[in-house]
Amino acid sequence: MAHPPIITLTTDFGRSDHFVGAMKGVILSTNPQASIVDIAHEVQPYDVLDGALTIAQAYPYFPPASVHIVVVDPGVGSPRRPILVSADRHYFVAPDNGVLSIVFERDPTATVRHITSEHYFLQPVSNTFHGRDIFAPVAGHLSKGIDTSNFGEPVTDFVRFALPKPKRVGEKQIKGVILKVDHFGNCLTNITPADIPELFAGSSVAFRLIAGQKEITKLVSSYANGPADQPFVIVGSSAYLELATNRADASQLLGLRRGSEVTLSLE
Amino acid sequence: MAHPPIITLTTDFGRSDHFVGAMKGVILSTNPQASIVDIAHEVQPYDVLDGALTIAQAYPYFPPASVHIVVVDPGVGSPRRPILVSADRHYFVAPDNGVLSIVFERDPTATVRHITSEHYFLQPVSNTFHGRDIFAPVAGHLSKGIDTSNFGEPVTDFVRFALPKPKRVGEKQIKGVILKVDHFGNCLTNITPADIPELFAGSSVAFRLIAGQKEITKLVSSYANGPADQPFVIVGSSAYLELATNRADASQLLGLRRGSEVTLSLE
Amino acid sequence: MAHPPIITLTTDFGRSDHFVGAMKGVILSTNPQASIVDIAHEVQPYDVLDGALTIAQAYPYFPPASVHIVVVDPGVGSPRRPILVSADRHYFVAPDNGVLSIVFERDPTATVRHITSEHYFLQPVSNTFHGRDIFAPVAGHLSKGIDTSNFGEPVTDFVRFALPKPKRVGEKQIKGVILKVDHFGNCLTNITPADIPELFAGSSVAFRLIAGQKEITKLVSSYANGPADQPFVIVGSSAYLELATNRADASQLLGLRRGSEVTLSLE
Repeated sequence: MAHPPIITLTTDFGRSDHFVGAMKGVILSTNPQASIVDIAHEVQPYDVLDGALTIAQAYPYFPPASVHIVVVDPGVGSPRRPILVSADRHYFVAPDNGVLSIVFERDPTATVRHITSEHYFLQPVSNTFHGRDIFAPVAGHLSKGIDTSNFGEPVTDFVRFALPKPKRVGEKQIKGVILKVDHFGNCLTNITPADIPELFAGSSVAFRLIAGQKEITKLVSSYANGPADQPFVIVGSSAYLELATNRADASQLLGLRRGSEVTLSLE
Repeated sequence: MAHPPIITLTTDFGRSDHFVGAMKGVILSTNPQASIVDIAHEVQPYDVLDGALTIAQAYPYFPPASVHIVVVDPGVGSPRRPILVSADRHYFVAPDNGVLSIVFERDPTATVRHITSEHYFLQPVSNTFHGRDIFAPVAGHLSKGIDTSNFGEPVTDFVRFALPKPKRVGEKQIKGVILKVDHFGNCLTNITPADIPELFAGSSVAFRLIAGQKEITKLVSSYANGPADQPFVIVGSSAYLELATNRADASQLLGLRRGSEVTLSLE
Repeated sequence: MAHPPIITLTTDFGRSDHFVGAMKGVILSTNPQASIVDIAHEVQPYDVLDGALTIAQAYPYFPPASVHIVVVDPGVGSPRRPILVSADRHYFVAPDNGVLSIVFERDPTATVRHITSEHYFLQPVSNTFHGRDIFAPVAGHLSKGIDTSNFGEPVTDFVRFALPKPKRVGEKQIKGVILKVDHFGNCLTNITPADIPELFAGSSVAFRLIAGQKEITKLVSSYANGPADQPFVIVGSSAYLELATNRADASQLLGLRRGSEVTLSLE
C-alpha cells in the first residue's frame, strides 16, 4: 500500500522563529502529500559535527527512500555547494560542509550530486536562508519521485571529515573525548566497545576512567542499575560509551562538556 | 471515511537529541500510514507524576482508538514491565511505573497487559532506550489493527499511585500543594472546586490563600479580568485552582515551585 | 490530486505543557484527515507583535487555502472577539487583538468575520483556553470545507496596529528599532532596503550604524562573507536589515534586545 513520502528535518534553527515553519510551508507547497517529521532543530548553532551525529543516530530507523533535510549551514551564501546524497537506501539534502560525514563513513558507495538545477529552487534565492529556498523545495520535488539525476551531476570532491577517534596509549589505556552531552546530562564519549574489547571480556574487569576531576570505576548495563550517588560508564543506545548517573545530570556532576577529554585505564 | 491512525508521543526526552526522531522513524517503519502527534517531550526528567499529569490533560481530546506512547522511564533496563493499556476508549503504551495513574483513576475498567511478544520489538533490544526498541514498534503494530491480546497477558498488579490530595483542616481551611508550574508561570494546585465548594457558592466569598510568603484574596474567572499587579486564584482549563497573574509569571512573583504548599482559609 | 487539508499552529504556549497537544487532539477529533504543522509555539508570552511577525514570515510559503491558527491571547475570557479571516488566499483563526495586523497590511481586501456560531465550539467553553475550545475546533471544521459565512458575520472594526516604522531624520539619517532577536542572536530592525535606498545604490556606500554602545560600518550580502570578529549589517531572509555576526550572537555582542534603538547615518 502506498504511503505518504517522508521528509525529515534536522537543523540548528531552533523553534522560536519562523524558519522551520517557512521550510515546512515550502515543502507542502511543493508536495502537499509529504509527511514531514522533525528530527531535531536544536543542533548546536553552526556545529556541523553535532548535526552529523544527530542525523546519523536517527535516519537508519526511517523507512528506505525517506528524504532527510539536514541544514547546519554557517556557509550559507558562500560558494559552498548544496548536495543531494543517495546513501544507505536513503536520500539526504544538505550543504556540502561535512554534515553528512557519518553517512559517508557508513556507505562508501554513496552517490553525491551537486544540486544545480535552479528551476527546482524557490525564486529569488536569498543569500541567507537556503533551507527555505533550496533544500526544502529540492526535497519536496525529490519526494514526488523525480529522479536524482535531474538535480545535478555527481561529484567526488565533497567535504567530509573524520570523527575524532579515541587513541590507545600503550596496552592498557585509551584516551577519548566527549562528543556530546544529551538532554539528561549523559556524556557520550567517542569510545565504542570495539575500541576497548578487554573491558567487556568478563563480568568484572577493573578500570579507572578519569573525567574532569573525578574517577569512575563502575560499568553498568542500564541506568537504573547504576548507583544513585556516583557516576558510571554505560554503553548507550548509540553504541558509544557514556558517562552517566542514575537520575541526575552527569555533565554537571563531572564538569564535562563537548570536547572534554577522558582517559580510561585498565587495571 | 477512514483516517490515518493517530499515535501521540509524551516523553521526557527533550528535543535536542535524536531520541524523538529515532522513535518516529521506528513508528513509520512499522506503520508508514501513522499520523504522529507530539504532545510534549519536556516532561520533567524522570518525573512520573509530571508525565501522568501531561498525558491526562491531553489524551481525552483525541479521537477514540488513538495510541498514546508515554515514556518517562527512569527504570529502563530494570525488570519494570512494559504495558499496553486499553482505557477510556484509548490505547496507551508505557512503562509500568505509574505514569498512567490518572488514566486508571478515570477508568477503573482499564485492561492492562504486560507486553511480552518480543517479535514486535526492534531487535536487538537495548537496555537504555525502550522508547525506540519496544514502545514505538508496539504502538506502530497496534495502530495497524493488531489485537491487543497479541501483545501479552492481562495483569492486575500494575503500578499506580494516588495524586496528592488536598486536606480539609477544620471547617474553613484546606491545604494543598503545587502540582506543576506551566509555561506562563501559572501554578496549578491539586485543589479542585469540588474540594471547596463553599468558595464557589456566591459571587464574593471572602478567603485568604497563603502561598510562599504572600497572601491572595481574589478569585477571578479569566486571566484578563485579574488585576495587573497582584496574583489571584482562577479555575484553570484543567479544572484545578491555579495561582496566576495578568500577564506575568506567578511562580516567580510568589516564589513557588512544584511541591510548594498552599493554604486556603475561608473567612 | 486531493491532499490533506493543512492547519498550522502559531502560539505562545511553549511545548512543555499539554496545551498544544490538547489543541491537536481537538483538531483531529474534528477533522482526522487534517495535516497539522507547527510553525512556532515560542512566541514571546502575551506578545502580539511577536506573534504578528512570526505568522507573517511563515504563512506565505504554505499552499493556498491553508488554515492558520494564531493564538497569542492575553485577553482570553474577556469580551475580545474570536475572528476568522480570509486574506491573501489563506485562512486565519485568531483572537481579535491585532495579531494578524501584518496580514491585514498585505491584503487590504481581507474579509474578517466575528466567529459566533457556538455549535462549532468545544462545549463547555472555558474562560482560559480558547485555543482548545474555540480556535482549534473552528479550524477543524473550516478545513472540512465548511464555508466561512457559516461561522459568523463580517466586521470592519477589527483590531489592527501599525508596525513601528523607521524615521528619516534629515537627508542622511534613519532611526529604527529592533523588532526581534532570532535564535542565532541576529537582530532584525524595522528598516527595509526601501526605507534607505541610498545604502544599496552602489557597492561601497559609507555609513555608520549606532546600536547599543557600538558602531557598525560594514554591509555584507551573506553571513559567511562577514568578518568573524565584528558585527555587520545584512538584509535578512525576511527583507529587513539585520545586525549580525559571522557565527556568533550579535544581540549579546551589541547588548541589544527587542525595542532597542538603532541609528543609521550615511556618510
